[in-house]
Amino acid sequence: MAKSVFYHAGCSVCLSAEQDILNLIGASNVEVVNLGEDKSKIPQAEKAGVKSVPALLTPNGHVLHINFGASMADVKG
Amino acid sequence: MAKSVFYHAGCSVCLSAEQDILNLIGASNVEVVNLGEDKSKIPQAEKAGVKSVPALLTPNGHVLHINFGASMADVKG
Repeated sequence: MAKSVFYHAGCSVCLSAEQDILNLIGASNVEVVNLGEDKSKIPQAEKAGVKSVPALLTPNGHVLHINFGASMADVKG
Repeated sequence: MAKSVFYHAGCSVCLSAEQDILNLIGASNVEVVNLGEDKSKIPQAEKAGVKSVPALLTPNGHVLHINFGASMADVKG
């Protein structure tokens, strides 16, 4: 299976959701990207359709926005 | 692994998210509950912490609210 990508920004709700997602889908099936630490990946995330974090980009290109942690505007600072 | 519960209300964003979740986690690991069709399960969902649908209740009791389809108030009609 192609990997999913879990985008987050290090906020507490993100980290809690990250653990849940890794438990459910399996850590080996998910690439975790911290947009707070690696801001160079923000354009790529936005292009994929990420509107807020935490969000899970599925292998088929859908974006599941999980809870509502921080808007992309907040991540950009 | 204990089953997760995917709560939804039949809206299009719910059904799209349901397919993604079933693909990612595996259909056998998820119980799907349509609160629009089975309103008797709404109190149970609310007690678990479901604020909007679609939402995924994980085996450890966390609720991941996915996207924003419809508020619980809307589902109750």
